[in-house]
Formats: sequence, structure tokens, C-alpha cells
Amino acid sequence: MSRLESAIRRLEAQRDCIDFAASALVDVPGCILELGLGNGRTYDHLKTRFPGRPVYVFERELRAHPDSTPDDDHLFLGDFFATLPQALARLGATAALAHCDFGSGKAERDSAVAARLAGAVAPLLRPGALVLSDQPLAHPAWQPEQLPAGVGEGRYYIFRVPISHVRG
Amino acid sequence: MSRLESAIRRLEAQRDCIDFAASALVDVPGCILELGLGNGRTYDHLKTRFPGRPVYVFERELRAHPDSTPDDDHLFLGDFFATLPQALARLGATAALAHCDFGSGKAERDSAVAARLAGAVAPLLRPGALVLSDQPLAHPAWQPEQLPAGVGEGRYYIFRVPISHVRG
Repeated sequence: MSRLESAIRRLEAQRDCIDFAASALVDVPGCILELGLGNGRTYDHLKTRFPGRPVYVFERELRAHPDSTPDDDHLFLGDFFATLPQALARLGATAALAHCDFGSGKAERDSAVAARLAGAVAPLLRPGALVLSDQPLAHPAWQPEQLPAGVGEGRYYIFRVPISHVRG
Repeated sequence: MSRLESAIRRLEAQRDCIDFAASALVDVPGCILELGLGNGRTYDHLKTRFPGRPVYVFERELRAHPDSTPDDDHLFLGDFFATLPQALARLGATAALAHCDFGSGKAERDSAVAARLAGAVAPLLRPGALVLSDQPLAHPAWQPEQLPAGVGEGRYYIFRVPISHVRG
């Protein structure tokens, strides 16, 4: 598969997983967390698919398209592990969705972030919330969800926070 | 349409136009010109679809993925209008395909490049060659080709150099 085909598959997986989440979360109110803004394309898609819900962005360094740059009230700028506790203090456990797109292509760095991320995100999620991720995450309380048809195994990951979830 | 959906359409259009060109050029020998390397994804796709043919890259500034960076013999680094005449001196009219992907999102700059590009590329093309472009180009000798099914009007452009083409 060429790098062009691989890029198409990756973007289609993002679109399909976000669209699945938008349907699955109709009855789960709450805000949206976008971990890793990058170019801002998935942020734009999240805003389209979750109209009326605040989307909070976590990013180390802003380099997004101007049309897809959140205002200061919706931006937590800095290292995830510094900003997620700040967000928890401000938002509490109010998120219906966390979309985690932080793969840098550097395997060692990505797996180090992935190993700690679930624990840092989990306290922000309300019961019934979904987590989408481009990297494998693991949290004892989260249940893996089936991927939408057409999304290849291992290309994206979906987890659900059980309704009876004990946070932390 | 969200920016994510738009990006998917753009990459699919690139893939479909390159795949069309690979079929259409089976009997037209010659090298491939890639004008605008960017991340290097379409360069990778061109190499996959045109095995055994040299792919020459024209780029102002290298910022491609290391796996998709051409060697010095296949790279013309600098402004298109300085490097295309250098390429003509070295390669002559030997190209079967020119893939032009130089849209910067800055409309004024893009249309200024587009207005001059056809005239600078044309002398490098052999009769029967194809030109793919993300921007509208115009050359008196080139004939517009129908886009592959599924590629939206105006998202990509395909031109063919007639067999009886008078170059220049």
C-alpha cells in the first residue's frame, strides 16, 4: 500500500469512527475532548458532528489551520499530563467523547504517552462516554467497542466507559 | 463538508487520477515529473504505479517524509521556473506524465504559478503524455480529459498532449 493509500485509510477511519460516535452518543450529553489538534481537520469534523457541544482541545503547540483553531476558552495548551488535570479541575467528569490523535510516528514516544494517557483522561469522562484513539490505550474500566465496517483492525481504537464505571 | 471530508476527497482524487494515468499510459513510455513534493505521499504512489520509470521531483524546499525523499539525481530543488529549464536541458521531451500539486491555499499565488506553469512544463512532455493538476492549467495544445468517476468537477484536472502536438 502506498503512503497515499495509507493516508486515505487513516482519514477515512477517523471520519467513520467520529461518525459512529456521533450516532452512539445521541443520548449521552456532555462536552468533547480533542487530544492532539494537529492540522485541525478532525476538530472541524467533531464540530460538524456534535453541533452545540463545546469541543475542548489539548495540544502542545498550535500549528492548525486558522479556520480550525479554537479560542482560548476551549484550548489547553501544553503537555497533556499538565493540562488534563487543569481541565479536570475546570470541567469535572463531563465529557461524552475523548478523541485521541497523538501518533507522531515515533513508536517509543507514542507508546510512552499511550501508557499514561488512559489514566489521565478517564477522570474527565462521564458514564457511557466513548474514547477514540489512533493508538492502543488500556484502562481497566473501559470496554473495547467494535470498529465501524471498513475500518481495519489496529488502525483505530474505540472504548466505552461503562454506565456503572468507577472513575480514576 | 468538514475539512476532514474535504481532505479525504482531495487524496482520493489524487489516487484516482494517478491510477487512471497509470492505465492510460501503458503504451506511452517515458519518465514521470512530480511538481510539488510536499509530504511525499503522491510521490510514493507514483513510484508504486509506475514501477521502473524514473520519477523526477521539482520542489522549492524539501520537507517530505524521509521514506519519500528522492535522491539528488531525481531532485530539482528551487523555483519551478528556474528548475524546469534545467530539467529540459537534461531530459528533453521525454516525460509521459506531469503531476502538478502546488496549491498552497493562497489563491493569488496559486493562480500566478498556474498561469505560467503550462508553458514551462509543456516542452518536457512527449506526444501522448498526460498532465494531472490540482489547479486549473491552460495550454493551447492540451486537450482536457474526462475525470475518473467519483472525482468532483474542479477538484482535479487532467490534460492530454496530442500525438500531433507541436511543443512550446
